[in-house]
Amino acid sequence: MFSVTVRDHVMIAHSFRGAVFGPAQRLHGATYVVDVEFTRAVLDEDGIVVDIGRAGESLRAVLGELNYRNLDDVPEFAGRNTTTEFLARVVFERLVEAIHRGELGEGAGAVEQIRVTLHESHVASASFEGRVASSH
Amino acid sequence: MFSVTVRDHVMIAHSFRGAVFGPAQRLHGATYVVDVEFTRAVLDEDGIVVDIGRAGESLRAVLGELNYRNLDDVPEFAGRNTTTEFLARVVFERLVEAIHRGELGEGAGAVEQIRVTLHESHVASASFEGRVASSH
Amino acid sequence: MFSVTVRDHVMIAHSFRGAVFGPAQRLHGATYVVDVEFTRAVLDEDGIVVDIGRAGESLRAVLGELNYRNLDDVPEFAGRNTTTEFLARVVFERLVEAIHRGELGEGAGAVEQIRVTLHESHVASASFEGRVASSH
Amino acid sequence: MFSVTVRDHVMIAHSFRGAVFGPAQRLHGATYVVDVEFTRAVLDEDGIVVDIGRAGESLRAVLGELNYRNLDDVPEFAGRNTTTEFLARVVFERLVEAIHRGELGEGAGAVEQIRVTLHESHVASASFEGRVASSH
Amino acid sequence: MFSVTVRDHVMIAHSFRGAVFGPAQRLHGATYVVDVEFTRAVLDEDGIVVDIGRAGESLRAVLGELNYRNLDDVPEFAGRNTTTEFLARVVFERLVEAIHRGELGEGAGAVEQIRVTLHESHVASASFEGRVASSH
Amino acid sequence: MFSVTVRDHVMIAHSFRGAVFGPAQRLHGATYVVDVEFTRAVLDEDGIVVDIGRAGESLRAVLGELNYRNLDDVPEFAGRNTTTEFLARVVFERLVEAIHRGELGEGAGAVEQIRVTLHESHVASASFEGRVASSH
Repeated sequence: MFSVTVRDHVMIAHSFRGAVFGPAQRLHGATYVVDVEFTRAVLDEDGIVVDIGRAGESLRAVLGELNYRNLDDVPEFAGRNTTTEFLARVVFERLVEAIHRGELGEGAGAVEQIRVTLHESHVASASFEGRVASSH
Repeated sequence: MFSVTVRDHVMIAHSFRGAVFGPAQRLHGATYVVDVEFTRAVLDEDGIVVDIGRAGESLRAVLGELNYRNLDDVPEFAGRNTTTEFLARVVFERLVEAIHRGELGEGAGAVEQIRVTLHESHVASASFEGRVASSH
Repeated sequence: MFSVTVRDHVMIAHSFRGAVFGPAQRLHGATYVVDVEFTRAVLDEDGIVVDIGRAGESLRAVLGELNYRNLDDVPEFAGRNTTTEFLARVVFERLVEAIHRGELGEGAGAVEQIRVTLHESHVASASFEGRVASSH
Repeated sequence: MFSVTVRDHVMIAHSFRGAVFGPAQRLHGATYVVDVEFTRAVLDEDGIVVDIGRAGESLRAVLGELNYRNLDDVPEFAGRNTTTEFLARVVFERLVEAIHRGELGEGAGAVEQIRVTLHESHVASASFEGRVASSH
Repeated sequence: MFSVTVRDHVMIAHSFRGAVFGPAQRLHGATYVVDVEFTRAVLDEDGIVVDIGRAGESLRAVLGELNYRNLDDVPEFAGRNTTTEFLARVVFERLVEAIHRGELGEGAGAVEQIRVTLHESHVASASFEGRVASSH
Repeated sequence: MFSVTVRDHVMIAHSFRGAVFGPAQRLHGATYVVDVEFTRAVLDEDGIVVDIGRAGESLRAVLGELNYRNLDDVPEFAGRNTTTEFLARVVFERLVEAIHRGELGEGAGAVEQIRVTLHESHVASASFEGRVASSH
């Protein structure tokens, strides 16, 4: 299996509900350094997994919808804890949609799996990894 | 699959037996920067993989039993080479026991897999990855 | 010159006022990975710059006052932009006060200079470096 | 599963053909920081995955064939884009051959899988992961 | 003293003349991960050292002139070894010119010192640090 | 000022005397990832600060004298705590001697300052920085 990984970051505010979160129930924030790994079995004719330029732009667009926001005010996340692991899946799902819309190029249709990792500090991170259902 | 990773470190002395180890047969030491990744298929009701606070405390407790010790003097390791890969499994097994004792909380019972990585320098690391057998 | 550096982190929310900040005028947040370097000309009798255990505890206490908070609500920062560089000086000043209160031990009185660096992402950081005025 | 990872680097020049590469169609270059992870199910009698000294030497030898070269002039790569993902497989294949020649020691015959990751910058990397066919 | 540091990267080909360079006399290449630290004594009215957005854009523009190029073909560098340390000064000088042209904003005129570090691998880097002569 | 930095590592055992060290009074060990920065005002005729190959070899030789050893058994360190900051100065002094013996080449005589940093974990490091007295 071949894979390509690109990195970007996002800075958000949010709060959590539930005793398990302790002081993180207060409004606070985080920088997430985000790694996205695209995996497929064979390279395309150019010898690549995805157009890394387009992959980076798609990631930037997905993170741009969250960047510099208080996630407590985002309607889509109402009633949910926007934990690091939850947000990893959000980024995964939006990148899969971008692939299906063709934003990463035709070749990206052969991507089989995506792993999204959000590093919230030098000592903690969370990931979501899933299959990319074929759009055909 | 979702995962959460926490990091801590431990500083130990030890020596190895076997020509393959060359000068590392002498008493020397290492700092291991330890990453532990907990994986499960679905998030719990709070939207998390594990209580990251408890996970960090459990890791600290497991490493605390080894920290600032000469592993050559630890009875449990008698006759064994405490290589980086061997120690990765030791940490794995002790964390699985901690989960089964309930130290990481009830929700941690749903953790399916743990991967422990020990970084021994900026150019070398070793890992052990295994399934967490159900405690029921 | 000798120095010792310790690392910890803090997660906060805040917003900025001023057109120069663009979208960062909205309420958002950040993880700051914080490095503090203590510098002095000669080592003490134990062969150290500072008691690294106490230094870490003092840093944790200083960051604990900010951690999981919305800095827009902290009275002390009213009317100020809590930029990364501004916060680096805040951490510096509070550590100097901790030294003068004796929290880092008697030997820490010989520390001549402190440099505080806050990493806000994998591509940006800010620092404040200053002299530690003698408390005598 | 146990694994051991070693790191080294290589500095090369090359150019790409295909509109997808944009300005990278010009002759340019890269430093690749290379991580190689060797995986097997059980440790050998010494308690190791591979002789890490020999693994490092084999990696250095494989990278040495590419180091300080213009890959556009390497006959073996004629007509191919030497992308990061392509080169990850090249390193994989040459390490598998080294194992089969016995260069990593007898024990390395039990290695089941190898993952090669080339970091081309602080924001991009590519990997190839494959099974090591038994040499028997 | 306050400082702010921004990071970007550039990928180039080049060769060196001189026996001291050994195999690096051949045409090869490098990724340079570039850190630029801007230092000044006091913050501006917004509480910042420089507009970090503009600083990043200026760095990207300076690196853009070198990116994806064979430095052996750049007339300005004819007869010079484009070593990592040499290139650190080139980036420094071009950023100082950008400040004097006002590209980093009016406030950047108060920047007193700039340090440019080019990381050429995980084990080697080079820096140039100099004063920013006042443009008045 | 120009500088060049090279990195290597060393793995040792030792123990400390003094209540300030707590559990580190027991025999334990450490990996030190060692950065050495060589600084001078002008580049030599080849455009370099030092021959980076020779600098790396000298560092490896200096660390080789300590590597895979119990520092409690090294006569030269008898009665001393081999703390991270103490060892940073040891490495500094031995590199200065290597320069004076000509091991880094003639050009290295122009090196004015050396900074040695030992990273003992992902959260702690110590440095020694000093002038290189002219050998003439």
